[in-house]
Amino acid sequence: MEVESKEWILAQYVGEGVPTSEHLKLRTSNLKITKDVLPDDHVMLRLHWLSVDPYLRAKMSSQQDGLYLSQFHLNQAVTTFGVGEVIESKHSGLSFGEIVIHPFAPVAEYCIAPASFLRKIDPDSGVSVLDYISALGIPGFAAWVGIVVLGDPKPGENVFISAAAGGVGVFAGQLAKLKGCRVVGSVGSDVKVKFLKEEIGYDEAFNYNVETDYDAALSKYFPNGIDIYLDNVGGRMLEAVLNHVNSRARIPLCGMISQYNKVWTEREGVRNLLNMVGKEVRMEGFMLASYMNRFGEFLEEMIGYIKQRKIVSEHKIYHGIESFLESFGSLFTSSNVGKVIVQVNKDAKA
Amino acid sequence: MEVESKEWILAQYVGEGVPTSEHLKLRTSNLKITKDVLPDDHVMLRLHWLSVDPYLRAKMSSQQDGLYLSQFHLNQAVTTFGVGEVIESKHSGLSFGEIVIHPFAPVAEYCIAPASFLRKIDPDSGVSVLDYISALGIPGFAAWVGIVVLGDPKPGENVFISAAAGGVGVFAGQLAKLKGCRVVGSVGSDVKVKFLKEEIGYDEAFNYNVETDYDAALSKYFPNGIDIYLDNVGGRMLEAVLNHVNSRARIPLCGMISQYNKVWTEREGVRNLLNMVGKEVRMEGFMLASYMNRFGEFLEEMIGYIKQRKIVSEHKIYHGIESFLESFGSLFTSSNVGKVIVQVNKDAKA
Repeated sequence: MEVESKEWILAQYVGEGVPTSEHLKLRTSNLKITKDVLPDDHVMLRLHWLSVDPYLRAKMSSQQDGLYLSQFHLNQAVTTFGVGEVIESKHSGLSFGEIVIHPFAPVAEYCIAPASFLRKIDPDSGVSVLDYISALGIPGFAAWVGIVVLGDPKPGENVFISAAAGGVGVFAGQLAKLKGCRVVGSVGSDVKVKFLKEEIGYDEAFNYNVETDYDAALSKYFPNGIDIYLDNVGGRMLEAVLNHVNSRARIPLCGMISQYNKVWTEREGVRNLLNMVGKEVRMEGFMLASYMNRFGEFLEEMIGYIKQRKIVSEHKIYHGIESFLESFGSLFTSSNVGKVIVQVNKDAKA
Repeated sequence: MEVESKEWILAQYVGEGVPTSEHLKLRTSNLKITKDVLPDDHVMLRLHWLSVDPYLRAKMSSQQDGLYLSQFHLNQAVTTFGVGEVIESKHSGLSFGEIVIHPFAPVAEYCIAPASFLRKIDPDSGVSVLDYISALGIPGFAAWVGIVVLGDPKPGENVFISAAAGGVGVFAGQLAKLKGCRVVGSVGSDVKVKFLKEEIGYDEAFNYNVETDYDAALSKYFPNGIDIYLDNVGGRMLEAVLNHVNSRARIPLCGMISQYNKVWTEREGVRNLLNMVGKEVRMEGFMLASYMNRFGEFLEEMIGYIKQRKIVSEHKIYHGIESFLESFGSLFTSSNVGKVIVQVNKDAKA
């Protein structure tokens, strides 16, 4: 059998700004679905779900931008964390119809993958497929490393999370609540404020497009100061936070979405780092690859919460492989609530 | 007996800039040298040596400036780390002629002090009185906390130190060398470059007034990147360092002398903090008060080095209590080599 498989390739590196159809192009190729084309210990996957994450922007950049990730290759498919179904197999451990996680899946409808990259999902585990992309995937793990490992939360502490309604923020807030903290988030719309407070359990949230004086907002929402700030945005919000930190505050740096689309010399400078001296603040950047030795511990804790219904997920689903460019651009416009996911196969089970 | 005692008082808080004679004024008062005026468990000291440190600037400020130290009181003597001689005593443990350290000594010729603040110096310890102010005082302890505790140096690592010929930098560089690191410093004059390389044992040093492209200088002196940066200056140099850090680099923030005399909104913003994410850099401010539980460990290690002649000290001595204002201003003009000290009593033994 031969199928048409569409995939998104990087046609041109991205300078400043959000990628457009000049940079990312949809390419169609014909693919033979047959065991003959597979190398040993490889499988053919029909992709079902793909994770759309801000860090991918760094891999499309024409210059080093602070994350130091390797660039995607030009004219090759961009890759991301995905879930697919085995449709052909040359590996004894993987059979037709099984559902697997592929951490470096091409943004495509079909792909060939080495079995060693893949992890089987147990359909009877009581955990949904989408949870594997969100709560148990990159955003959940990032939230766990940021809050639990580097944040080291103590009951009663005050936690602030930016981009709080995004993929990471939703889980970060819930983890901090589960550790007994008071949690406040900043977001870009009133809908998200309501969502965080009513659906996710944040104690407070504010819309930075309305409360534009960040300093005043933080004074209002943190009368007792900030003990942990999970920074997802950088720039002016980070600067404002440094005026409200308590002694020995921790600032895990998860990413800086407000800064990704600018060259570094054009980014917003943080002028009050001296506050870190007097308040003995620890600021620490992290990349998930360095914490893979704790992935098992993370999974155990999060699966426990999910089964006890202590963690809620929120997904913003874009439909069809064609929607990838739009879904990716949406990350930078503050238009989504929850984890952005592309549903590649419309019949896929969530 | 009655003596004239001169002391420096804070007449006016300092806004921007280096303090002048408008802010710090010399006051003369008459003091009775007699046991009668002493409360129980107090002594009268004739001060011999006073430590002149950049952090004192923060205590003279009209606004919070990032160190969050309590302000000096207006019209009262400013205080600093000092050494003096007991000339009257109402405490059984301290006798006439004994030499003591006073961590909060007024910048004065004489003072009354509670015995509980004071620590006796053993004149037969093989350690000079000046060492107690420098290597074993605030600059030595700051260097030790920064390099040994927070820097966590490993043999072969590349260490960068700014304000390297200053009180902290001289000891920080030597400690890093003793831990097996390669050490490079930045300073404000060619004399200091020569001093660091020839007297202190730095592997390299550069004059930031000559090599004004900090990025190029760091490329040249750190072909293998920076593992530890002990930041004493903040601003542009910190930003340049963030373009040269290795994975998992540590940046202990000791102070930011280039920034003290400006209000925070006028300080130089650091625009490339995103590099901390990709390189997983840890930046941490520290205040010595929080590490006092390790002061004994520090003393033991440093006294060992001093007795083995593995640590060299360099002092810039200003003479007479009158010189305090000039000596303090000199900290901010990059004009000194080594630890700045005021010799209050011209007959004091070093």
